[in-house]
Amino acid sequence: MSETEHSDWQPSSSQQDGGEYQTVIDADTAQRDPQTALVVAKIKALRQSIDNVDTAIVSLLAERFKYTSRVGVLKAEAGFAPADYKREDYQIERLHRIAVDAGLDPDIAEMYREFVVAEAKKRHQRIADAGGDPGVLDVFA
Amino acid sequence: MSETEHSDWQPSSSQQDGGEYQTVIDADTAQRDPQTALVVAKIKALRQSIDNVDTAIVSLLAERFKYTSRVGVLKAEAGFAPADYKREDYQIERLHRIAVDAGLDPDIAEMYREFVVAEAKKRHQRIADAGGDPGVLDVFA
Repeated sequence: MSETEHSDWQPSSSQQDGGEYQTVIDADTAQRDPQTALVVAKIKALRQSIDNVDTAIVSLLAERFKYTSRVGVLKAEAGFAPADYKREDYQIERLHRIAVDAGLDPDIAEMYREFVVAEAKKRHQRIADAGGDPGVLDVFA
Repeated sequence: MSETEHSDWQPSSSQQDGGEYQTVIDADTAQRDPQTALVVAKIKALRQSIDNVDTAIVSLLAERFKYTSRVGVLKAEAGFAPADYKREDYQIERLHRIAVDAGLDPDIAEMYREFVVAEAKKRHQRIADAGGDPGVLDVFA
Protein backbone atom coordinates (compact mmCIF):
# COMPACT_ATOMS: atom_id res chain seq x y z
CA MET A 1 0.00 0.00 0.00
CA SER A 2 1.66 3.26 -1.06
CA GLU A 3 1.62 6.34 1.15
CA THR A 4 -0.22 8.41 -1.42
CA GLU A 5 -2.98 5.98 -2.25
CA HIS A 6 -4.98 6.37 0.96
CA SER A 7 -3.76 9.70 2.24
CA ASP A 8 -7.22 11.29 2.38
CA TRP A 9 -10.26 10.30 4.36
CA GLN A 10 -13.48 10.48 2.45
CA PRO A 11 -16.42 12.55 3.64
CA SER A 12 -19.26 10.44 4.98
CA SER A 13 -22.18 9.67 2.70
CA SER A 14 -24.53 11.33 5.22
CA GLN A 15 -22.55 14.55 4.82
CA GLN A 16 -22.51 14.19 1.02
CA ASP A 17 -26.27 13.80 1.18
CA GLY A 18 -26.46 17.01 3.20
CA GLY A 19 -27.35 15.02 6.29
CA GLU A 20 -25.85 14.75 9.77
CA TYR A 21 -22.42 16.30 10.42
CA GLN A 22 -19.47 13.91 10.60
CA THR A 23 -15.78 14.80 11.05
CA VAL A 24 -13.72 14.58 7.87
CA ILE A 25 -10.00 14.06 8.27
CA ASP A 26 -7.62 14.82 5.43
CA ALA A 27 -3.94 13.87 5.22
CA ASP A 28 -2.70 17.31 6.39
CA THR A 29 -4.91 17.28 9.50
CA ALA A 30 -3.81 13.72 10.26
CA GLN A 31 -0.13 14.67 10.07
CA ARG A 32 -0.55 17.75 12.27
CA ASP A 33 -2.52 16.05 15.04
CA PRO A 34 -0.48 13.26 16.72
CA GLN A 35 -3.55 11.44 18.05
CA THR A 36 -5.22 11.38 14.63
CA ALA A 37 -1.92 10.28 13.05
CA LEU A 38 -1.83 7.35 15.48
CA VAL A 39 -5.36 6.26 14.55
CA VAL A 40 -4.48 6.54 10.83
CA ALA A 41 -1.34 4.42 11.39
CA LYS A 42 -3.39 1.79 13.27
CA ILE A 43 -5.98 1.65 10.47
CA LYS A 44 -3.20 1.33 7.86
CA ALA A 45 -1.69 -1.65 9.70
CA LEU A 46 -5.11 -3.33 9.99
CA ARG A 47 -5.77 -2.72 6.29
CA GLN A 48 -2.54 -4.44 5.38
CA SER A 49 -3.73 -7.49 7.35
CA ILE A 50 -7.13 -7.27 5.60
CA ASP A 51 -5.37 -7.15 2.23
CA ASN A 52 -3.30 -10.21 3.18
CA VAL A 53 -6.48 -12.09 4.14
CA ASP A 54 -8.06 -11.10 0.81
CA THR A 55 -5.03 -12.38 -1.12
CA ALA A 56 -5.36 -15.73 0.67
CA ILE A 57 -9.14 -15.92 0.12
CA VAL A 58 -8.98 -15.00 -3.59
CA SER A 59 -6.24 -17.62 -4.10
CA LEU A 60 -8.36 -20.21 -2.30
CA LEU A 61 -11.43 -19.23 -4.36
CA ALA A 62 -9.34 -19.84 -7.50
CA GLU A 63 -8.59 -23.37 -6.24
CA ARG A 64 -12.22 -23.91 -5.22
CA PHE A 65 -13.49 -23.09 -8.71
CA LYS A 66 -10.88 -25.38 -10.25
CA TYR A 67 -12.22 -28.21 -8.07
CA THR A 68 -15.87 -27.42 -8.78
CA SER A 69 -15.14 -27.19 -12.51
CA ARG A 70 -13.70 -30.69 -12.38
CA VAL A 71 -16.82 -31.86 -10.51
CA GLY A 72 -18.91 -30.12 -13.19
CA VAL A 73 -17.13 -31.94 -16.03
CA LEU A 74 -17.41 -35.31 -14.24
CA LYS A 75 -21.13 -34.75 -13.57
CA ALA A 76 -21.83 -33.61 -17.13
CA GLU A 77 -19.95 -36.54 -18.67
CA ALA A 78 -21.77 -39.03 -16.41
CA GLY A 79 -25.14 -37.33 -16.89
CA PHE A 80 -25.51 -36.32 -13.23
CA ALA A 81 -27.58 -33.23 -12.43
CA PRO A 82 -25.68 -30.00 -11.64
CA ALA A 83 -27.68 -29.45 -8.40
CA ASP A 84 -27.34 -31.74 -5.38
CA TYR A 85 -29.60 -30.70 -2.51
CA LYS A 86 -28.32 -33.23 0.02
CA ARG A 87 -24.82 -31.92 -0.53
CA GLU A 88 -26.11 -28.38 0.07
CA ASP A 89 -27.79 -29.34 3.38
CA TYR A 90 -24.54 -30.96 4.47
CA GLN A 91 -22.54 -27.83 3.55
CA ILE A 92 -24.98 -25.47 5.31
CA GLU A 93 -24.77 -27.44 8.57
CA ARG A 94 -20.99 -27.84 8.32
CA LEU A 95 -20.16 -24.18 7.55
CA HIS A 96 -22.53 -22.97 10.28
CA ARG A 97 -20.60 -25.06 12.81
CA ILE A 98 -17.17 -23.90 11.52
CA ALA A 99 -18.30 -20.24 11.58
CA VAL A 100 -19.47 -20.44 15.20
CA ASP A 101 -16.19 -22.12 16.21
CA ALA A 102 -14.19 -19.42 14.38
CA GLY A 103 -16.18 -16.53 15.89
CA LEU A 104 -17.84 -15.56 12.61
CA ASP A 105 -21.52 -14.61 12.29
CA PRO A 106 -22.99 -17.81 10.77
CA ASP A 107 -25.12 -15.63 8.46
CA ILE A 108 -21.89 -14.48 6.78
CA ALA A 109 -20.77 -18.08 6.28
CA GLU A 110 -24.17 -18.89 4.75
CA MET A 111 -23.95 -15.84 2.43
CA TYR A 112 -20.49 -17.00 1.38
CA ARG A 113 -21.81 -20.51 0.68
CA GLU A 114 -24.76 -19.23 -1.34
CA PHE A 115 -22.42 -17.05 -3.38
CA VAL A 116 -19.91 -19.78 -4.29
CA VAL A 117 -22.52 -22.51 -4.80
CA ALA A 118 -24.61 -20.26 -7.08
CA GLU A 119 -21.55 -19.40 -9.15
CA ALA A 120 -20.39 -23.03 -9.29
CA LYS A 121 -23.88 -24.13 -10.42
CA LYS A 122 -23.94 -21.56 -13.22
CA ARG A 123 -20.59 -22.91 -14.40
CA HIS A 124 -21.74 -26.54 -14.09
CA GLN A 125 -24.79 -25.78 -16.20
CA ARG A 126 -22.56 -24.10 -18.78
CA ILE A 127 -20.29 -27.19 -18.86
CA ALA A 128 -23.32 -29.49 -19.19
CA ASP A 129 -24.76 -27.34 -21.99
CA ALA A 130 -21.42 -27.66 -23.80
CA GLY A 131 -21.69 -31.46 -23.50
CA GLY A 132 -19.17 -31.76 -20.68
CA ASP A 133 -16.37 -30.51 -22.91
CA PRO A 134 -13.50 -29.36 -20.65
CA GLY A 135 -12.61 -26.91 -23.42
CA VAL A 136 -15.02 -24.37 -21.93
CA LEU A 137 -12.86 -24.44 -18.80
CA ASP A 138 -10.25 -22.42 -20.61
CA VAL A 139 -12.43 -19.35 -20.22
CA PHE A 140 -12.54 -19.11 -16.41
CA ALA A 141 -15.14 -21.91 -16.12
CA MET B 1 -18.07 -36.77 4.93
CA SER B 2 -19.93 -39.95 5.86
CA GLU B 3 -20.76 -42.61 3.29
CA THR B 4 -24.48 -42.27 3.84
CA GLU B 5 -24.75 -38.50 3.59
CA HIS B 6 -24.21 -38.22 -0.16
CA SER B 7 -25.02 -41.72 -1.33
CA ASP B 8 -27.80 -40.60 -3.69
CA TRP B 9 -27.60 -38.35 -6.70
CA GLN B 10 -30.42 -35.89 -7.03
CA PRO B 11 -32.64 -35.81 -10.10
CA SER B 12 -31.98 -32.82 -12.32
CA SER B 13 -34.24 -29.80 -11.98
CA SER B 14 -35.12 -30.08 -15.68
CA GLN B 15 -36.47 -33.57 -14.99
CA GLN B 16 -38.32 -32.40 -11.88
CA ASP B 17 -39.92 -29.74 -14.04
CA GLY B 18 -40.95 -32.45 -16.49
CA GLY B 19 -38.40 -31.15 -18.97
CA GLU B 20 -35.51 -32.73 -20.86
CA TYR B 21 -34.39 -36.23 -19.85
CA GLN B 22 -31.25 -36.47 -17.76
CA THR B 23 -29.69 -39.63 -16.29
CA VAL B 24 -30.33 -40.07 -12.56
CA ILE B 25 -27.83 -42.18 -10.65
CA ASP B 26 -28.70 -43.61 -7.24
CA ALA B 27 -26.29 -45.31 -4.81
CA ASP B 28 -27.26 -48.85 -5.90
CA THR B 29 -26.68 -48.12 -9.60
CA ALA B 30 -23.37 -46.47 -8.74
CA GLN B 31 -22.19 -49.51 -6.81
CA ARG B 32 -23.21 -51.96 -9.55
CA ASP B 33 -21.59 -50.07 -12.43
CA PRO B 34 -17.79 -49.83 -11.97
CA GLN B 35 -17.44 -46.81 -14.27
CA THR B 36 -20.13 -44.85 -12.41
CA ALA B 37 -18.60 -45.89 -9.08
CA LEU B 38 -15.28 -44.44 -10.26
CA VAL B 39 -16.88 -41.10 -11.15
CA VAL B 40 -18.66 -41.02 -7.78
CA ALA B 41 -15.35 -41.72 -5.99
CA LYS B 42 -13.63 -38.94 -7.95
CA ILE B 43 -16.40 -36.46 -7.08
CA LYS B 44 -16.19 -37.45 -3.40
CA ALA B 45 -12.44 -36.79 -3.34
CA LEU B 46 -12.91 -33.39 -5.01
CA ARG B 47 -15.69 -32.52 -2.56
CA GLN B 48 -13.38 -33.22 0.36
CA SER B 49 -10.90 -30.74 -1.14
CA ILE B 50 -13.74 -28.22 -1.65
CA ASP B 51 -14.77 -28.67 2.01
CA ASN B 52 -11.16 -28.10 3.10
CA VAL B 53 -11.00 -24.89 1.05
CA ASP B 54 -14.29 -23.74 2.63
CA THR B 55 -12.93 -24.39 6.13
CA ALA B 56 -9.90 -22.23 5.32
CA ILE B 57 -12.00 -19.45 3.75
CA VAL B 58 -14.56 -19.31 6.59
CA SER B 59 -11.69 -19.16 9.12
CA LEU B 60 -10.07 -16.34 7.14
CA LEU B 61 -13.41 -14.52 6.89
CA ALA B 62 -13.65 -14.71 10.70
CA GLU B 63 -10.23 -13.02 10.96
CA ARG B 64 -11.18 -10.47 8.27
CA PHE B 65 -14.28 -9.36 10.18
CA LYS B 66 -12.26 -9.09 13.40
CA TYR B 67 -9.88 -6.72 11.58
CA THR B 68 -12.65 -4.68 9.98
CA SER B 69 -14.48 -4.44 13.32
CA ARG B 70 -11.33 -2.94 14.83
CA VAL B 71 -11.12 -0.50 11.91
CA GLY B 72 -14.80 0.30 12.49
CA VAL B 73 -14.23 1.10 16.17
CA LEU B 74 -11.16 3.24 15.38
CA LYS B 75 -13.06 5.14 12.67
CA ALA B 76 -16.12 5.67 14.88
CA GLU B 77 -14.05 6.87 17.83
CA ALA B 78 -12.09 9.29 15.61
CA GLY B 79 -15.22 10.42 13.73
CA PHE B 80 -14.08 9.07 10.35
CA ALA B 81 -16.77 8.07 7.85
CA PRO B 82 -17.51 4.31 7.51
CA ALA B 83 -17.13 4.46 3.68
CA ASP B 84 -13.78 5.14 2.00
CA TYR B 85 -14.09 5.20 -1.79
CA LYS B 86 -10.35 5.54 -2.52
CA ARG B 87 -9.73 2.43 -0.46
CA GLU B 88 -12.41 0.64 -2.51
CA ASP B 89 -10.84 1.63 -5.83
CA TYR B 90 -7.49 0.36 -4.56
CA GLN B 91 -9.06 -2.95 -3.47
CA ILE B 92 -10.91 -3.43 -6.78
CA GLU B 93 -7.72 -2.97 -8.82
CA ARG B 94 -5.67 -5.13 -6.45
CA LEU B 95 -8.08 -8.07 -6.25
CA HIS B 96 -8.61 -8.01 -10.03
CA ARG B 97 -4.86 -8.42 -10.50
CA ILE B 98 -4.58 -11.21 -7.88
CA ALA B 99 -7.56 -13.06 -9.42
CA VAL B 100 -6.04 -13.00 -12.91
CA ASP B 101 -2.70 -14.24 -11.53
CA ALA B 102 -4.47 -17.04 -9.63
CA GLY B 103 -6.59 -18.13 -12.62
CA LEU B 104 -9.88 -16.92 -11.12
CA ASP B 105 -12.56 -15.08 -13.10
CA PRO B 106 -12.01 -11.46 -11.92
CA ASP B 107 -15.81 -11.05 -11.74
CA ILE B 108 -15.84 -13.59 -8.91
CA ALA B 109 -13.14 -11.66 -7.03
CA GLU B 110 -15.19 -8.48 -7.46
CA MET B 111 -18.36 -10.22 -6.22
CA TYR B 112 -16.40 -11.46 -3.19
CA ARG B 113 -15.11 -7.91 -2.52
CA GLU B 114 -18.59 -6.38 -2.80
CA PHE B 115 -19.94 -8.98 -0.41
CA VAL B 116 -17.34 -8.50 2.35
CA VAL B 117 -17.15 -4.71 1.98
CA ALA B 118 -20.96 -4.37 2.14
CA GLU B 119 -21.09 -6.51 5.27
CA ALA B 120 -18.16 -4.68 6.87
CA LYS B 121 -19.82 -1.31 6.14
CA LYS B 122 -23.10 -2.41 7.73
CA ARG B 123 -21.13 -3.38 10.84
CA HIS B 124 -19.13 -0.12 10.82
CA GLN B 125 -22.36 1.88 10.68
CA ARG B 126 -23.74 -0.16 13.57
CA ILE B 127 -20.56 0.55 15.60
CA ALA B 128 -20.76 4.27 14.75
CA ASP B 129 -24.46 4.37 15.70
CA ALA B 130 -23.52 2.83 19.06
CA GLY B 131 -20.97 5.64 19.57
CA GLY B 132 -17.94 3.50 18.73
CA ASP B 133 -18.52 1.31 21.78
CA PRO B 134 -16.60 -1.97 21.28
CA GLY B 135 -19.29 -3.62 23.41
CA VAL B 136 -21.42 -4.13 20.30
CA LEU B 137 -18.57 -6.29 18.95
CA ASP B 138 -19.53 -9.03 21.36
CA VAL B 139 -22.47 -9.89 19.13
CA PHE B 140 -20.61 -10.87 15.95
CA ALA B 141 -19.92 -7.23 14.95
